[in-house]
Amino acid sequence: MKNGLPDAIDVVEAKTSKIDAVDFENLVFGNVFTDHMMICDYVNGEWQNPVIKPYGPIELEPSAKVFHYGQAIFEGMKAFKDDQDQVWLFRPEDNFNRFNKSSVRLAIPEFPKEFFFEGLETLLNLDRDWIKKGFGNSLYIRPFVIATESGVSASPSKSYKFMIICSPAKAYYSGEVRVVFAEKFSRAADGGVGYAKAAGNYGAQFYPTNLAKEEGYQQIVWTDANTHEYLEEAGTMNIFFRVGDKLLTAPTSDRILDGVTRKSVITLAEEHGIPVEVRRVKVQEIVEAAEKGELKEIFGAGTAATINPVKGFGHQGKKFELPELEDSYATFFKKELMNIQYNKSEDKYGWRYLVKN
Amino acid sequence: MKNGLPDAIDVVEAKTSKIDAVDFENLVFGNVFTDHMMICDYVNGEWQNPVIKPYGPIELEPSAKVFHYGQAIFEGMKAFKDDQDQVWLFRPEDNFNRFNKSSVRLAIPEFPKEFFFEGLETLLNLDRDWIKKGFGNSLYIRPFVIATESGVSASPSKSYKFMIICSPAKAYYSGEVRVVFAEKFSRAADGGVGYAKAAGNYGAQFYPTNLAKEEGYQQIVWTDANTHEYLEEAGTMNIFFRVGDKLLTAPTSDRILDGVTRKSVITLAEEHGIPVEVRRVKVQEIVEAAEKGELKEIFGAGTAATINPVKGFGHQGKKFELPELEDSYATFFKKELMNIQYNKSEDKYGWRYLVKN
Repeated sequence: MKNGLPDAIDVVEAKTSKIDAVDFENLVFGNVFTDHMMICDYVNGEWQNPVIKPYGPIELEPSAKVFHYGQAIFEGMKAFKDDQDQVWLFRPEDNFNRFNKSSVRLAIPEFPKEFFFEGLETLLNLDRDWIKKGFGNSLYIRPFVIATESGVSASPSKSYKFMIICSPAKAYYSGEVRVVFAEKFSRAADGGVGYAKAAGNYGAQFYPTNLAKEEGYQQIVWTDANTHEYLEEAGTMNIFFRVGDKLLTAPTSDRILDGVTRKSVITLAEEHGIPVEVRRVKVQEIVEAAEKGELKEIFGAGTAATINPVKGFGHQGKKFELPELEDSYATFFKKELMNIQYNKSEDKYGWRYLVKN
Repeated sequence: MKNGLPDAIDVVEAKTSKIDAVDFENLVFGNVFTDHMMICDYVNGEWQNPVIKPYGPIELEPSAKVFHYGQAIFEGMKAFKDDQDQVWLFRPEDNFNRFNKSSVRLAIPEFPKEFFFEGLETLLNLDRDWIKKGFGNSLYIRPFVIATESGVSASPSKSYKFMIICSPAKAYYSGEVRVVFAEKFSRAADGGVGYAKAAGNYGAQFYPTNLAKEEGYQQIVWTDANTHEYLEEAGTMNIFFRVGDKLLTAPTSDRILDGVTRKSVITLAEEHGIPVEVRRVKVQEIVEAAEKGELKEIFGAGTAATINPVKGFGHQGKKFELPELEDSYATFFKKELMNIQYNKSEDKYGWRYLVKN
């Protein structure tokens, strides 16, 4: 590598495409992958030249540290195609920066920016046909890095594998979403890794989420581990509450992910004169607002889900349903965001990023 | 499978052994693996027949959930060889039970006990020559399970791979160990996965431990995430403090691993009339005891390290050194434990488990 630029990206094209076998109208989220993937190995203290090659299995020692110590982080991004067949990313620098922020917290070497963007754009151009036009269609992009060193002593790996894999996507959650406020289990500790997209943050939520599902909730809104009095995030999305016409959401912290969609919603709210309070949100105030009929909406914001309206919530065994609104903020923000993402409206904030063809 | 028993364990023996290339006097912990490994796959809702085959790489989809969501847990055990060439395990049922307790918390299907013990014993007999006689020599055993389903939606995997790999071991920490009490970073939240041997618990400690190493400490003694006022565990070992002639250690909780060596030390202390208090231990009381000269020892207890004496500790920028003792508890417990583990003393508590030849 010279001046942070890869000497060259070695591209091996797939001999045949799997695309004709894919039913793009009935995609299950994250189940089908495009024809190519990007790989970049870290050995001898530096990132080697990236390679793009046909999507396929990788081989690792059973003692590879990722299997034992969860030294792994990821990002989630999306590519959108506009009516002129141009491909766009949404605020990808924010994802890239967070990727390295997560890496630092997991003692993983930071990934070079030029490798990331050159590799990603080359990959997207190769798999361009997998990105379908039309609202709701996108290509979900998953950059990740895993610790590959063989050895079961609990210390940082000396070798890593960075990869990008891509999956054509429709909606993340199909069907209605109801959430329960966490009362016993927790997602993150102060001074922990909650703000990072660390692999272990997700697996740790599966069991409590299974329990919630048995009670009829698809997701948990996590509360602070210490008192369970404050609402934090939903694990795969940040969470917003609309009380009257005011929008409430928790501030980011070392427990809460600094979501790209979350901060975009805050910016759009301010632009459109929707009062938004970024502050700790008490469980009690949301329950009381619901009881008084002042709680109008709850919605999640995240790359995979974009904006996900919540139909109801549970707390201490009580179930609350939310009204159907004509003037839903969730619908408004989703439309605003999609108009920007699909190049249908002005890009006031420079959020769109054109993938050079 | 019938009645929980595998129909048969399929054994493929290695054609050649790597053992002659190994320098057993200069082992780095967890770096070299024996000739064989055990594999058992979970598909279609059940654990399949276990296979033992030559140690070697495994192949996974890059979208396998273990890489993205850290859905993975492990155990650490040791096998010891006595002077009559018999091979012993130490309280293996406790490790097996904790393996499944960790699995439940990570939404991983529990592993059948008969598969575990039949597979492990078959494996140990195949690799018997790798277990060397003599105090300090052992075979470190690493059972683990990883989520193998392909797909990047954040939900529990439908397929898993259980494996056991083995590594000949001498000491875990070579050289002197000094610890620092955590003031900013945390290991676990109430309601989290701290009590489980979840992969993600370990990777999350690497960065803070790197920072501690820069200050001259090999390990961190984690404190409660909420106040940092109470001492909990050291991440790879539980921790004991000797104040005067009294031994103090934190009670287990959902943040603290229920260590097999920890509870063995407590039992041995009670047997030998050493007063032991299992209660929350304040940082402040340990610092004050050190200042008054009443803090005589700190030591860690864990399978990998057995008993690990701590030479000194740091707190709020101050460094404390501990005295060299003639009548060290750490030395006493290590000797007592090893005498049991290597079949040199009576096994009052039924802790030894003979591996049938």
